Amino acid sequence: MAEEKENATIVVFSGELDKALAAFNIATTAAAMDIEVTMFFTFWGLNVVTKEKTDAGNKNPLQKMMGMVNKGGARRLKLSNMNMLGGGKVAMKKLMADFHMPSLEEMMPLAKELGVRFLACTTSMALMGLEEADFIPEVEDFVGAATYVEIASRSQINLFI
Amino acid sequence: MAEEKENATIVVFSGELDKALAAFNIATTAAAMDIEVTMFFTFWGLNVVTKEKTDAGNKNPLQKMMGMVNKGGARRLKLSNMNMLGGGKVAMKKLMADFHMPSLEEMMPLAKELGVRFLACTTSMALMGLEEADFIPEVEDFVGAATYVEIASRSQINLFI
Amino acid sequence: MAEEKENATIVVFSGELDKALAAFNIATTAAAMDIEVTMFFTFWGLNVVTKEKTDAGNKNPLQKMMGMVNKGGARRLKLSNMNMLGGGKVAMKKLMADFHMPSLEEMMPLAKELGVRFLACTTSMALMGLEEADFIPEVEDFVGAATYVEIASRSQINLFI
Repeated sequence: MAEEKENATIVVFSGELDKALAAFNIATTAAAMDIEVTMFFTFWGLNVVTKEKTDAGNKNPLQKMMGMVNKGGARRLKLSNMNMLGGGKVAMKKLMADFHMPSLEEMMPLAKELGVRFLACTTSMALMGLEEADFIPEVEDFVGAATYVEIASRSQINLFI
Repeated sequence: MAEEKENATIVVFSGELDKALAAFNIATTAAAMDIEVTMFFTFWGLNVVTKEKTDAGNKNPLQKMMGMVNKGGARRLKLSNMNMLGGGKVAMKKLMADFHMPSLEEMMPLAKELGVRFLACTTSMALMGLEEADFIPEVEDFVGAATYVEIASRSQINLFI
Repeated sequence: MAEEKENATIVVFSGELDKALAAFNIATTAAAMDIEVTMFFTFWGLNVVTKEKTDAGNKNPLQKMMGMVNKGGARRLKLSNMNMLGGGKVAMKKLMADFHMPSLEEMMPLAKELGVRFLACTTSMALMGLEEADFIPEVEDFVGAATYVEIASRSQINLFI
């Protein structure tokens, strides 16, 4: 049997900018090192890979409520710490640009080009009132926890972020 | 030597409803796939597996203070995000019921039936002023970090939630 | 080929006292069990291993802003939960002393003696305006994500804290 590639699987549970940056930094670095990387977006992490929305659609009232933090789009994510009504986030984005670091919006297509797999968790999608059409095209599949566990069980690196 | 079962070990550090749900969702899914799952409850995560309490018992004043967030019981956990004085939590629980998803209180005995091992961290128990009698019966053992590390070092999936 | 030692690699992303304690508790326990442990400090986690500072140095205004939460020093970290303007933290430190548990400041040199490797993430250092001289002497190297991924890919235990 030919030697299999190494695998890394990252659960992206958090919907915060700094944690998403950390996840994508590890993912793109590993993919560039020829490791097969899967990102499993779940719960608040779904917000990292949804399109920006302008209205709440035809959700039921409870899903609308759940969707209040769920405006969608990597551009809108906040920091987990020191967000300071957006000031910390603006400062960080400016610093990243000054140091010629890629932004999250730039990292996502880069990750895709490097072969990183984007999977969205169907259970969380139901809870958040999200449909397949709500996601950016980088998301290639919509799967349950069993698919995640199967991939994770043969991964050398497993992280929950 | 017979082939050993695969192992998954989850540190449950957080005492928030959404993170506990993610932990149990992964745990029950993996157990149903015949993976040996151990959950190691530590720090705020102890609150997930404590009984609901009506008084503070005979703790010293400092432990009482530490116990203020530590009312115990899965039913009382809050969301890590958008808890909105309980509104977000109520909305999420209602949505989960509408979609016929099991609640956390239902998932715990299910996990136990599937063979998931519940371990509580003795060091954190001392800090939080908790005793063995404070825990739900699903918790089968009270151990230190060395037991966790030993199990984790032979697990294919390791997560810190 | 001689049998290699087992490895554990912990990303310390969070700059909170309770999470740092959990990270060091696992790290020192694993190192005492003859596991090779690497801690990779990144983002807010850099604050765990920086020296305490008295002034902001010659940073640009944006880095100063980012540095507002970045006073440095394990002694200054807050709890992720129930910090209560420092009351919860004081209570926890007192309880830890009463139970003869080592404090974070005591655990760090102990970890070093046990052979735990301290690595700081250079990308995050640039963002936070930190230089090598800002770190405690336990930090032995300043590396990028590729070094982390390389070590993580041959570790039995990988955690993101």
